[in-house]
Amino acid sequence: MRTITLLGSTGSVGKNVLDIIRRYPERFRAGILSSNENVSELVRQAKEFRPKAVVIGKKELYRDLEKELPPGIKPMAGAEALEEAASEVSDMVFLANSGTAALKPLLASVKKGRTIALASKEPIVSAGKMIMSAAAESGSRIIPVDSEHSAVMQCLTGRDISEVRTVYITGSGGSLRNVPIERFDSITVEEVLAHPKWDMGRKITVDSATLMNKGLEVIEARWLFDVPPEKIKVVIHPEAIVHSLVEFIDGTVSAAMFRPDMKFPILRALGHPEIISSDLARVDPPSLGRMTFEEPDNAKFPALGLAYEVLSQGGSVPAVLNGANEEAVGLFLKRKISFTSITRLVMRAVEAHKKIDDPGFEEIQACQKWAREEVLRSCLHG
Amino acid sequence: MRTITLLGSTGSVGKNVLDIIRRYPERFRAGILSSNENVSELVRQAKEFRPKAVVIGKKELYRDLEKELPPGIKPMAGAEALEEAASEVSDMVFLANSGTAALKPLLASVKKGRTIALASKEPIVSAGKMIMSAAAESGSRIIPVDSEHSAVMQCLTGRDISEVRTVYITGSGGSLRNVPIERFDSITVEEVLAHPKWDMGRKITVDSATLMNKGLEVIEARWLFDVPPEKIKVVIHPEAIVHSLVEFIDGTVSAAMFRPDMKFPILRALGHPEIISSDLARVDPPSLGRMTFEEPDNAKFPALGLAYEVLSQGGSVPAVLNGANEEAVGLFLKRKISFTSITRLVMRAVEAHKKIDDPGFEEIQACQKWAREEVLRSCLHG
Repeated sequence: MRTITLLGSTGSVGKNVLDIIRRYPERFRAGILSSNENVSELVRQAKEFRPKAVVIGKKELYRDLEKELPPGIKPMAGAEALEEAASEVSDMVFLANSGTAALKPLLASVKKGRTIALASKEPIVSAGKMIMSAAAESGSRIIPVDSEHSAVMQCLTGRDISEVRTVYITGSGGSLRNVPIERFDSITVEEVLAHPKWDMGRKITVDSATLMNKGLEVIEARWLFDVPPEKIKVVIHPEAIVHSLVEFIDGTVSAAMFRPDMKFPILRALGHPEIISSDLARVDPPSLGRMTFEEPDNAKFPALGLAYEVLSQGGSVPAVLNGANEEAVGLFLKRKISFTSITRLVMRAVEAHKKIDDPGFEEIQACQKWAREEVLRSCLHG
Repeated sequence: MRTITLLGSTGSVGKNVLDIIRRYPERFRAGILSSNENVSELVRQAKEFRPKAVVIGKKELYRDLEKELPPGIKPMAGAEALEEAASEVSDMVFLANSGTAALKPLLASVKKGRTIALASKEPIVSAGKMIMSAAAESGSRIIPVDSEHSAVMQCLTGRDISEVRTVYITGSGGSLRNVPIERFDSITVEEVLAHPKWDMGRKITVDSATLMNKGLEVIEARWLFDVPPEKIKVVIHPEAIVHSLVEFIDGTVSAAMFRPDMKFPILRALGHPEIISSDLARVDPPSLGRMTFEEPDNAKFPALGLAYEVLSQGGSVPAVLNGANEEAVGLFLKRKISFTSITRLVMRAVEAHKKIDDPGFEEIQACQKWAREEVLRSCLHG
């Protein structure tokens, strides 16, 4: 029986994690649950899963939470409580919180040497070097839940990274793959959110349309698998069945495939290193029909090239990329900027930034904050 | 440095093995070489690779061999000499002899507990149960060189067979995939030998056209990986890049890919369990374009269904399938029978056979001999 500390349990990934926990009551139980601000869903989950504690991110919601919780479940609130929860002894800390919100709990958990399932890519993008060296020191193990990185892990099972020539991260190409570039300036939020293959959160769906998502994944892969950027490539695969391929030094390739459903990487992470039997929808190779693979269109989607550039600069620059992108995507979702402005504003922030070579945690936080403000400034002033 | 006993060094696979040995002089050397009857090529190879001994299969060629060999290399001849060579201490016994010819040396080598690279599928098809239990007893390890089984091994790296739901063996569909069934009776040997993807020996190219090759591979996989027949499926993949896929019990799939060149599985086997860097032509996923997968056409290619049927009967029946098929393919290559007669004659032999439940080596040999004669009889008498 594994006790799981699940942070971000009311989000898209978190709900999928609880669904898996629900299906395997003999294997998993929820130890702690958390949500940033969704008190009612958190209380509902607490009643069903009976964790020992629940955490609400926004401190001002503590009273509401306390009032509704059944007896025997401890209410907690605030950023420190989240860090405390992430540090607690458990069999696995599952970080399903979205975006940069996972950074502080991740770091707390890494320092305690926990086994961590990590769903969001932003913390590794912003602070990969720092986090991975802290993990090496504490013996913490980070298991990726992002489907592409879960797929890379699958391909690397029983092999060493020194045997790898190239890691190929696939992408469906996002919702705008077949939309001509001329239309990009008038693309609506609705068009962008209509992702053909994945049912995901809003921010990641926009990232998927700009291909920034692939860029962030390249940066993430660089740190998670300790593989140099020149060995990481992106390949567009609209059917979204193959999630990554790894070419070995002998010229053979392993590919990891599963239906585009987050439950696969979640189940892999929860059971790691074991494979757990599931009745999730299968791939069935003979009925695959056609699968296609092609180069990404760098002219239409400059975010990918930007991410490589940022990765080669290193230091605090990836944190700026990440902060600027979170802000710009937010502005697009609020219909304040056009689709093409997202990458343009991020690029401008990256260019305006003065790089710090080996940033600590506070500096990374500061750089992200600066980047967000820089995007806002550019947006307001032209 | 690994010393390789290479039996069948003058055939298609054997020459590829020597080419790999030639490319990696710091890793591999040939200890013993053998050929069934090609004295001149064997002597040429002996001069280049300087093995300690060479074996010619046909005893009557001993004098010719002895006369031509440079001093310091021991000439040997005959079936017993082949078995002796296979039993000798070496780092790896590479059995590249074609077809059933590999059975006796394989058994000798297995009994001595050697590490064996096995290129031909016929011995495992005929005597899989016996060979695998002898291997379990002696601690002998059999590494498949057949590309499909090498690919399965690649997918299973670091995993256990208990985690596998289905093994999918791919096939390009052979040279007749797009030929309508109405034309099958008038198909020529030349058309059959024009395989679109693989440059192989003649017998295997015909097996590939009837899909018997896939049938034999299903039987081979059953024994090599100890996986029940109902968990092995065949999928047609004309591009011949993916050589096998393994579905795990969680619904994820791993696929192994490489260019259709025997050197990949040969290099994998020679280096096993290490992966050795090579400059062989790469897959390059972004330029793959389209890959297709479909069900095999069982009406056009009845050999595949026959192989499953034979596998479920077990005992001596697979040996009969194999013997009958070798004979029937030979008759087709000599233009004595039509293409469709191959499977028909094999089927008839299988039906006429009286199954022996747990055949020993002599019985397996006898059944294969009987099957060959039965095919000849059917062919002559109607």
